[in-house]
Amino acid sequence: MHEIDIPKVYETVYHKQLDNGLDIYLYPKQDVEKTFAIFSTNYGSIDQSFSPINQKEMVTVPDGIAHFLEHKMFEKEDGDVFQQFSERGASANAFTSFTETAYLFSSTTEIEANVETLLDFVQNPYFTEESVEKEKGIIEQEIRMYDDQADWRLFFGTIDSMYRHHPVRIDIAGTVESINDITADDLYTCYNTFYHPGNMQLVIAGQFDPQQMMRLIEQNQNEKSFDIPPEIDRDYGDEPIVVDQSEKTIKMPINTPKCMVGIKEKPEALEPNVLLENDLIRDLALDIYFSKSGLHYESLYQEGLVIDSLRLEYMLEKSFGFTAIGASTMEPEKFGQRVKEMLHSIKTDQIDQDAFERVKKKKYGELLREYNNLETVASNIIQYHQLGLDFRDVFPTLEQLTVDRFQEKLQSWIDEDQITVCSIVPEGE
Amino acid sequence: MHEIDIPKVYETVYHKQLDNGLDIYLYPKQDVEKTFAIFSTNYGSIDQSFSPINQKEMVTVPDGIAHFLEHKMFEKEDGDVFQQFSERGASANAFTSFTETAYLFSSTTEIEANVETLLDFVQNPYFTEESVEKEKGIIEQEIRMYDDQADWRLFFGTIDSMYRHHPVRIDIAGTVESINDITADDLYTCYNTFYHPGNMQLVIAGQFDPQQMMRLIEQNQNEKSFDIPPEIDRDYGDEPIVVDQSEKTIKMPINTPKCMVGIKEKPEALEPNVLLENDLIRDLALDIYFSKSGLHYESLYQEGLVIDSLRLEYMLEKSFGFTAIGASTMEPEKFGQRVKEMLHSIKTDQIDQDAFERVKKKKYGELLREYNNLETVASNIIQYHQLGLDFRDVFPTLEQLTVDRFQEKLQSWIDEDQITVCSIVPEGE
Repeated sequence: MHEIDIPKVYETVYHKQLDNGLDIYLYPKQDVEKTFAIFSTNYGSIDQSFSPINQKEMVTVPDGIAHFLEHKMFEKEDGDVFQQFSERGASANAFTSFTETAYLFSSTTEIEANVETLLDFVQNPYFTEESVEKEKGIIEQEIRMYDDQADWRLFFGTIDSMYRHHPVRIDIAGTVESINDITADDLYTCYNTFYHPGNMQLVIAGQFDPQQMMRLIEQNQNEKSFDIPPEIDRDYGDEPIVVDQSEKTIKMPINTPKCMVGIKEKPEALEPNVLLENDLIRDLALDIYFSKSGLHYESLYQEGLVIDSLRLEYMLEKSFGFTAIGASTMEPEKFGQRVKEMLHSIKTDQIDQDAFERVKKKKYGELLREYNNLETVASNIIQYHQLGLDFRDVFPTLEQLTVDRFQEKLQSWIDEDQITVCSIVPEGE
Repeated sequence: MHEIDIPKVYETVYHKQLDNGLDIYLYPKQDVEKTFAIFSTNYGSIDQSFSPINQKEMVTVPDGIAHFLEHKMFEKEDGDVFQQFSERGASANAFTSFTETAYLFSSTTEIEANVETLLDFVQNPYFTEESVEKEKGIIEQEIRMYDDQADWRLFFGTIDSMYRHHPVRIDIAGTVESINDITADDLYTCYNTFYHPGNMQLVIAGQFDPQQMMRLIEQNQNEKSFDIPPEIDRDYGDEPIVVDQSEKTIKMPINTPKCMVGIKEKPEALEPNVLLENDLIRDLALDIYFSKSGLHYESLYQEGLVIDSLRLEYMLEKSFGFTAIGASTMEPEKFGQRVKEMLHSIKTDQIDQDAFERVKKKKYGELLREYNNLETVASNIIQYHQLGLDFRDVFPTLEQLTVDRFQEKLQSWIDEDQITVCSIVPEGE
């Protein structure tokens, strides 16, 4: 176990990689009441074509299987896992994203017993064909429920418009058709490959003794046997650099239209040595121009092109990345046009040095404050780990970012070919 | 200025009421980076019939005027207030609820200047008939946008089904028709009555010196003159004890139905001496029975009556109160029926002493942890103040709550006549 000091926040994170490949990060914090643990696998909705453990040939599994697997993990031969946590005063939860499946709990009591439950239920899969069939009905309802939500449709419509082949374009839960093809065998194939400890991380943040906690985890892991950590080949298809469609319109039974402008990242922006810097640049650019006090937000609002507020998203991962700016608007076409103009104008806009330093400082403060939020620290450690980065790198990267570098990087980010406009309009229009 | 010690959390809040009536609460915390301020008036969407300042007769103003006023406060002769905060590294915001209108900012720098801006812009109204007309178009769009949202319609449908006369049944933003009747004069009438310092509270939480901050606020307030703090009569109508309708169905163009069960509070449950206790009892009851690890949630999920998760709400105010349990469900009628059965069964259910102590302890931990979150502390102080309560009372109230008392109070809470079931179903069904 080695110590990782975080200079600016005067805290220490302990890290160890076990022989079975599991990466463990412990963040003890004595002035808190609650402990938060997250057990995560580097496996999300985009990982559909891969080489299974102990196998050379690639397989392709149905859309939505990572999310389906997450659902099935909570069911055990002897009942429901939520109840076990609850009896020990813990709240448990789980989520599936494009790139990650994570299981988590927070608790003020019986931390060690809860950590054991977390490890044991995730490392003990139990599916039968019968229980898989039953789950299909449940997930089908969940998919149909999301189909009613205009904001969800807008977000995935925008991604689908940017990406032609990359599986990020597919809804995380899959489709009613795709999940119908899932078998218990498929689930075991995915489980055995991606839930190997070598592909997983455990982060615990809160009030506990790190040495004692590490012993407990090691003991738990030593009682289980695993194959050699696998090298997993993942195939995301051959994705063009430019967007698939420059415009897309979805009709839905709503009164108020919505529009979202998406900027697709070029692969060069996602290279390991620049990904973090670009991530910060997208964040600062959205803040400077499109936040509630941003220059362009004010114009859009005054022109009557945005109702209430803008939805701002950015996501930079190894194999895909995008930024999105959306809103409810009575004039989706005009909104899309104006946001595109604004994005192009950013390239030639001369940012005031003081204004830039101000947003930089604000961001720096936000990053420091994140260390008071155990959930955020733990999630960040995992995300950085899965990207192959050190979670502390964000501080020097931000410090070194100059206004000139910022403006130079905006140049290569925004190109007409990288931009898509997706609208949701009332049926009948 | 007097000190209010919070024993369990070893913190101090400073309180002073100025001569103009303004209540100030300061919560200095030296280990934080950010400061959060909230300037709130005890005035929300339900306050439509009242006696204006310096006037005996009651007036009734159009629905949605408190929210309209909030919108208008940000516009000044010399531009937009958001920009002023932004230039000093602060983020500003505002909200209108049933009972409160609040203006807030968070900032790491120039705290004192930002506090002055907050006080000055809220205490300096500026409306013209022209700018009021322009705002109508903006708010009309906002109202139409919310009309598309099934969850919003379900929530307000449930409230409307419970209440016959009380203005809580009206959407906070009003209707397209009602806001059209608003004039600049109406806005000034509401402003002059409800934005008097005697009806307002300022809470600042974060890193600052309390003596110095108090001097700054006093100086700012001494430069402004106000009438004598008014006694405001408010009329909420003569509301029946029981629900207005036991069932309500709304049709919308969706695929997945939704259902919500509402329990209307009896006026006796909202008396000042029991309101806080009842608030805690609703909270604990929802946790024990309907949270993800709750006894009844598990049954509803297994019976296929709930997709994903339950929406749980409870709200106890002086003049109205309710609890609501909602979900997306393929069988809204069956869901409503089962939840009603479950609510009735709670009355005779024998709760395990240990289980009760566990949720009590969990809640206690949550309450203590809230003191790490400045926004939450500040909001709580205001809510308790506006209810005429001491924000620290929640600790002894929870401590003194026994399982016997809990079960006794559940008896009088749940009655068939107090329950409504509201559903949203696809059009054409």
